Amino acid sequence: MHTYKTVYYLYSAIECFLIVILIEAKEVIIRMALKLLQINFPFNGPWRDEMAQAYSELAHKLSETPGLLWKIWIENSNGGETGGIYLFEDESSLDTFLTEHIARLNSFGIENISAKKFDVNEPLTQITRGKLKQLS
Amino acid sequence: MHTYKTVYYLYSAIECFLIVILIEAKEVIIRMALKLLQINFPFNGPWRDEMAQAYSELAHKLSETPGLLWKIWIENSNGGETGGIYLFEDESSLDTFLTEHIARLNSFGIENISAKKFDVNEPLTQITRGKLKQLS
Repeated sequence: MHTYKTVYYLYSAIECFLIVILIEAKEVIIRMALKLLQINFPFNGPWRDEMAQAYSELAHKLSETPGLLWKIWIENSNGGETGGIYLFEDESSLDTFLTEHIARLNSFGIENISAKKFDVNEPLTQITRGKLKQLS
Repeated sequence: MHTYKTVYYLYSAIECFLIVILIEAKEVIIRMALKLLQINFPFNGPWRDEMAQAYSELAHKLSETPGLLWKIWIENSNGGETGGIYLFEDESSLDTFLTEHIARLNSFGIENISAKKFDVNEPLTQITRGKLKQLS
């Protein structure tokens, strides 16, 4: 009978321990903010539809980047600037992509690249209708 | 009979003219790129959940901005920087908002604001799953 009780207490203790770990893991997942990458650099065109044609293949390649939720392509033909707003699931995917992408842009002869990493504040973004995750 | 024919030709000519105008207007609407506003400025917190609490009221106010499709709130507590990525239907709504918003930020004692306007390249953004319009 004593053995039975001991096993029961041990089982309860393990169960409590696991529940605490699960709650903490969930907390960590909730706390992990989506990462936004903001890239700007000087550019001389092509712009608009011609830009879309010129970079369509690159866009398809980028769309397969691990951890990339989406990219918005931005252009300012008056100011001679372009770039992108990227949303990543996590920082490590962003960092891997950024290293490769800066090297690619440099290989195109592009310099003076501004690349900034941000966390997304999701509660505020939700209030202002920001589109973040994939809607399936 | 002559009068009838004249009226008919005149009617056909007006119809053709209206159709051409409609086609051109549609083309202009298609060509009008969505406008993205990228704002960054130095900031000392609050960050994350405390930021969300502090600016929840402002977020609700901003969400009513005419022409604003969405805003993503961004923060970098390590670099002491925050800001937003805004998507507007058109440039005039963006300009009206920007003037008001810069004045509001200045009234909070915030200076050294970087505000950049871009067109969105929609075909490329579509390939990379960028979330633009409201999904109803």
